[in-house]
Amino acid sequence: MMMTFDIQQPDNSIAKRLEDKINDLAKPKGSLGTLEELAFQTGLIQQTLTPALRKPVNVIYAADHGIADEGVSKSPKEVTRQVIHNFLNGGAGVCFLARQHGFKLKIVDSGVDFDFPSLPELINRKIRKGTRNFRYEAAMTQEEMEQAVRSGAEVVEECYRNGSNVISFGEMGIGNTAASSMWMTCLTNIPLIECVGAGSGLDSEGVRHKYTVLKEALDHYQGSREVLPVMQYFGGYEMVMAVGGMLKAAELKMVILIDGFIMTNCILAASLLYPEVLSYCIFGHCGDEAGHKRLLDSLGARPLLHLGLRLGEGSGAICAYPIVESAVRMINEMHTFSQATVTKYF
Amino acid sequence: MMMTFDIQQPDNSIAKRLEDKINDLAKPKGSLGTLEELAFQTGLIQQTLTPALRKPVNVIYAADHGIADEGVSKSPKEVTRQVIHNFLNGGAGVCFLARQHGFKLKIVDSGVDFDFPSLPELINRKIRKGTRNFRYEAAMTQEEMEQAVRSGAEVVEECYRNGSNVISFGEMGIGNTAASSMWMTCLTNIPLIECVGAGSGLDSEGVRHKYTVLKEALDHYQGSREVLPVMQYFGGYEMVMAVGGMLKAAELKMVILIDGFIMTNCILAASLLYPEVLSYCIFGHCGDEAGHKRLLDSLGARPLLHLGLRLGEGSGAICAYPIVESAVRMINEMHTFSQATVTKYF
Repeated sequence: MMMTFDIQQPDNSIAKRLEDKINDLAKPKGSLGTLEELAFQTGLIQQTLTPALRKPVNVIYAADHGIADEGVSKSPKEVTRQVIHNFLNGGAGVCFLARQHGFKLKIVDSGVDFDFPSLPELINRKIRKGTRNFRYEAAMTQEEMEQAVRSGAEVVEECYRNGSNVISFGEMGIGNTAASSMWMTCLTNIPLIECVGAGSGLDSEGVRHKYTVLKEALDHYQGSREVLPVMQYFGGYEMVMAVGGMLKAAELKMVILIDGFIMTNCILAASLLYPEVLSYCIFGHCGDEAGHKRLLDSLGARPLLHLGLRLGEGSGAICAYPIVESAVRMINEMHTFSQATVTKYF
Repeated sequence: MMMTFDIQQPDNSIAKRLEDKINDLAKPKGSLGTLEELAFQTGLIQQTLTPALRKPVNVIYAADHGIADEGVSKSPKEVTRQVIHNFLNGGAGVCFLARQHGFKLKIVDSGVDFDFPSLPELINRKIRKGTRNFRYEAAMTQEEMEQAVRSGAEVVEECYRNGSNVISFGEMGIGNTAASSMWMTCLTNIPLIECVGAGSGLDSEGVRHKYTVLKEALDHYQGSREVLPVMQYFGGYEMVMAVGGMLKAAELKMVILIDGFIMTNCILAASLLYPEVLSYCIFGHCGDEAGHKRLLDSLGARPLLHLGLRLGEGSGAICAYPIVESAVRMINEMHTFSQATVTKYF
């Protein structure tokens, strides 16, 4: 049975006091721009005038995709497991960012096509060794999807129990921009052609081939454009786990940092199930992947950074984290006009 | 006599090795976007494949402006000195950012209209208690301008001697967006109307009045549009000091972080004197002040952040600093394809 979540819109009754506090800080009103908005949002989520960010975690769900067999990615499938090794030995892109900003990494095998030995730092939630190829059939069964939502949520719940109140989500899975394009076109009605991009580095011929394969799969798809059937048909396991993780994080009133194109599709799906989840989200980064900006626009999201990242792994979310930290410091550490004896000129 | 600077273009012979190192990191080529560009630039400035950022400093030059008497700012002049007190007691906007990112603050009295007691943490380089009112006369004499360039440079040289190799510049001075608009229109030939904005928070009527005053001053100005006469006529002392500071930092091959509208005008002026200075600059932030984006475009600069900040003080530059740190970590800490045993798929 599909897991349900109890996600509350943050209680708005604290809003006026948060605004007053931010406006009483000794600066021209509004002059700290986005930092002021983030301080307000964080205070609202945590229902306090003194928000705090504790034990940030970056959860990376990893899985393989049957559609990768169709040559829709620049990288071969084996790269999924290789990069997981690189996560575990500290040399991957996300690792230096996690060290810099004090994030714990949680690497989850959601469905990688490889038999890992039992490794203490690799969380085994493998559902299957990769999804089925959605060019011909559903990527996963309904039971697998339900299990993925549950597993994704359980990983987040453990982070919360260990004291974390801020979480970012990343992914690793060769082929997952292809699956994301299918989610995007089905869930937003934006034409497929605008949802397909270069992924990890296809040239224009590669993008054309990817589009052709995906168009055929879309034409072949007989299911509805409701969110659950779309998630199930196109996968992958890591993306469905991220949906479950995001919903659980919102239920637990955690601050959620959203990464790039794939994770934005996951929060889109999550928000179609529970619109309240968006109140807990901070969008880290708008990348160059075709469609990401349109997707963000359709969510009304204004991401903090535009750095041309297209690595995934949560890298764009973690890069944006110090800005959220700045916002929290602002509301806690800046002096008010009266403390500072600055003429309140606004 | 005007101080001269010996600013070298970084030696490009290391460029190929830097590129090779960045491309051999285990990630899709180019997938860390701006981080890759910053790692390259930092390596080029420091002439090394293992760049390092040491003892970052934010220098804030502060001064008053005669033009403030014309009501061109939302804030009264006394706010300049009040905010300096708030810098010194740790409660100002820039203070929490400096603490967060490990910046030392150097507060310089370049020409504030107030007699401060001798304070150990306030560097006294006061040239005069505020510039003259450029609506009627030159803001400063030629000797004052030369002294300001020297003083600005000396403060930076001291930072360098204390071990800093990365420096950001900020300012405090009621009226200094007005002076900046004059620099911008004179030095870029962009019409004044496009160079005038709300500063610390003028409403549209206030902006109209500011424009009227500045237009009159511009029509009244008989001097040339060369950079030195413009700096001298329109001031202020803190801006001229920043020009000297930026030029000295480039001479010393420091990484220079550029803040908002006012500091962007200062680097524009500096680059008209010594174009090589731009090789050392990283642009932190594009704010909402009218004209800032056009000014950045005219310099070919692509700032790292767009957070709607309009506080000054170096806040936009310091907010961007963790991204530069990420870039340096990337080139030093990420594993290469061979270390990571990831298939080099690019």
